[in-house]
Amino acid sequence: MTGQLLERVRHEKPLIHHITNQVTINDCANATLCIGALPVMTHAVDEVEEMAAASNALVINIGTPTPDQIDAMVAAGKKANRLNIPVILDPVGLGATKLRTDTIKRLLDNVHVSVIKGNAGEISILAGQGGTVKGVESIGQYDNIEASCRDAAKIYACTVVVTGAADIIADSSRTLRVGNGDAMMGRVVGTGCMAASILGCFAAVENDHVQSSAAAMACFGIAGQLAAKRDDVKGPGTFKATLMDELYNLDTASIEQYLNIEEVVTI
Amino acid sequence: MTGQLLERVRHEKPLIHHITNQVTINDCANATLCIGALPVMTHAVDEVEEMAAASNALVINIGTPTPDQIDAMVAAGKKANRLNIPVILDPVGLGATKLRTDTIKRLLDNVHVSVIKGNAGEISILAGQGGTVKGVESIGQYDNIEASCRDAAKIYACTVVVTGAADIIADSSRTLRVGNGDAMMGRVVGTGCMAASILGCFAAVENDHVQSSAAAMACFGIAGQLAAKRDDVKGPGTFKATLMDELYNLDTASIEQYLNIEEVVTI
Amino acid sequence: MTGQLLERVRHEKPLIHHITNQVTINDCANATLCIGALPVMTHAVDEVEEMAAASNALVINIGTPTPDQIDAMVAAGKKANRLNIPVILDPVGLGATKLRTDTIKRLLDNVHVSVIKGNAGEISILAGQGGTVKGVESIGQYDNIEASCRDAAKIYACTVVVTGAADIIADSSRTLRVGNGDAMMGRVVGTGCMAASILGCFAAVENDHVQSSAAAMACFGIAGQLAAKRDDVKGPGTFKATLMDELYNLDTASIEQYLNIEEVVTI
Repeated sequence: MTGQLLERVRHEKPLIHHITNQVTINDCANATLCIGALPVMTHAVDEVEEMAAASNALVINIGTPTPDQIDAMVAAGKKANRLNIPVILDPVGLGATKLRTDTIKRLLDNVHVSVIKGNAGEISILAGQGGTVKGVESIGQYDNIEASCRDAAKIYACTVVVTGAADIIADSSRTLRVGNGDAMMGRVVGTGCMAASILGCFAAVENDHVQSSAAAMACFGIAGQLAAKRDDVKGPGTFKATLMDELYNLDTASIEQYLNIEEVVTI
Repeated sequence: MTGQLLERVRHEKPLIHHITNQVTINDCANATLCIGALPVMTHAVDEVEEMAAASNALVINIGTPTPDQIDAMVAAGKKANRLNIPVILDPVGLGATKLRTDTIKRLLDNVHVSVIKGNAGEISILAGQGGTVKGVESIGQYDNIEASCRDAAKIYACTVVVTGAADIIADSSRTLRVGNGDAMMGRVVGTGCMAASILGCFAAVENDHVQSSAAAMACFGIAGQLAAKRDDVKGPGTFKATLMDELYNLDTASIEQYLNIEEVVTI
Repeated sequence: MTGQLLERVRHEKPLIHHITNQVTINDCANATLCIGALPVMTHAVDEVEEMAAASNALVINIGTPTPDQIDAMVAAGKKANRLNIPVILDPVGLGATKLRTDTIKRLLDNVHVSVIKGNAGEISILAGQGGTVKGVESIGQYDNIEASCRDAAKIYACTVVVTGAADIIADSSRTLRVGNGDAMMGRVVGTGCMAASILGCFAAVENDHVQSSAAAMACFGIAGQLAAKRDDVKGPGTFKATLMDELYNLDTASIEQYLNIEEVVTI
């Protein structure tokens, strides 16, 4: 299934419209292109509805929010909703400032999102259980994160992805755990943002967003594992370049060898 | 000629003022520095005229347009015109949204540009023959692109560069074809933007902009070919780092070995 | 001392709030993470005070200034001052345009900065001795730069760092010279900006900002020296990736082997 979805991304080359932060905008575009889709990044209120309408998924990331950009996110998100284009939301730094809380509330009040991806602190806050975010980093332990993931999925009627040592993916009825990835991914700024881009690429080709999200996180994680194994990787800088290589080179054989997705059975 | 122009860039170290997009701004600055010129990137309306006046070329790229930035492009472009500083225009995504069409019209109505560089879709639209641009990507076949390139050059009284498997460069009287480059360049976000930067570096030191543009595209393409050959390149991520290396290391011997510029004879 | 300060950065993981330029924002974030601290980059007036208050240092860089961003710098800087959070200022391109002169004057009139880092032209201008900056590059010879560094430190009652072949660090009573670094660092856009980030990381853990700044510049320079030695570095592109690796891998043994800090005795 994961390998087939990757093939569909590469065959259909969906256009992924990003309204995203200034820090990792280039990385998100390159990750999107490497996995086989087409990126476009724009946040001008005057064109985001038109660009979203031409796209196959919309990725919204609030990493460096400004008033005009937030307006553009709402406008593009509403347009995407009207056209049944999936919206992926990355609530970067939710909990760190009031602006981020207000922005996420405004977005979720106005736009139905298909997939929300965040770290444990961000998703715990979304689930109403509180959390601590320092800058854009989750702080502390979240022992009930699987339950929080499901709760957030129910509240927002969407698929929720929590990134971590293992990624948790849930909607109102299913929970999956993806064990792919490498600790080195946490040493590079923007791997979380790139994950949201990859989630968008897969959501663009598959309507079951638990499946598409599990495939996306698995592919991204396997690329990270393959990169971490390479002899020419000596630290985060060479790892980042190599991660792009491995996203581009990812094939069915590697997916079959490394795929680690399991269903979480809950009572 | 190409090798001599590269030496002039390195000797004169022209200052290349960019008003450009957020996605590839770092890549454009690094490509400019690697080829031997000095980059400066700023888009504040309050300083772009002063910065343009201190520069040797102005590169305008509409990849992530905002109202303030478009105003800055017009102001800087007019100032550059008054001082005979060459202006390079990269109409990124022309055809994808009305905002981009309006922006390019406003720019071309108010600023005389020396060089326009675009993909086949963008240039075909500029030539009045229509085209399809998905996000920022040219879609479809353009069998008469050499004629469209010449037509656009006549309409805007400038040099036009169409990037592709071979690059086409034309003004009202000459057409050149540059066969340098590697398919891997299309797997990295921003190589088109970087090409515009390199076009600016060469236009800053040579007033014959068909010649300067051919030399720029050849040097950039040869750097891409040399990068693609390197053993340590395993995909788009390592290729991108290596492309910068090869721009920096490019020498006359490599240019002589790989240079592929031919004149297109038309009746 | 330098090795101990690096260990403190890695142990305390200070949050470094950047209000910085669009060109090198990703590099600054990655350099901060590689050295062991946590980066957060945001410039929205609506949240910078709250983000600065949660941070352990604030780095202000005027590389791509806009009116809203300058307001955010002043607001965040004042808040940091009230909370005794150190502020690092990188007056990028000071001298190139009136906007930059006015911005730096406004910042220094309203915010007490702990550390100012600039090139010779920028610092000479700050010291009232004039200088020439082309784009963001220092032009010309500055034979009295050590005296200018001390003068600027006295005028602004702070520590001043002048980057160059050797870095000069002074406050009103001491002057240090750091001989670490490699010429290749000047071939990559943003190493100056990254240096300001590293200065922020060390200022966050040590109140003696001459000491913290010397340790920061030495660590950054040693990482550059180690990167330049690596066999897999073939030019600026691979050097940049490797510089991040070496920041991450930097250890006490390398610091002891390469550390080159000397006190400048003045009469």
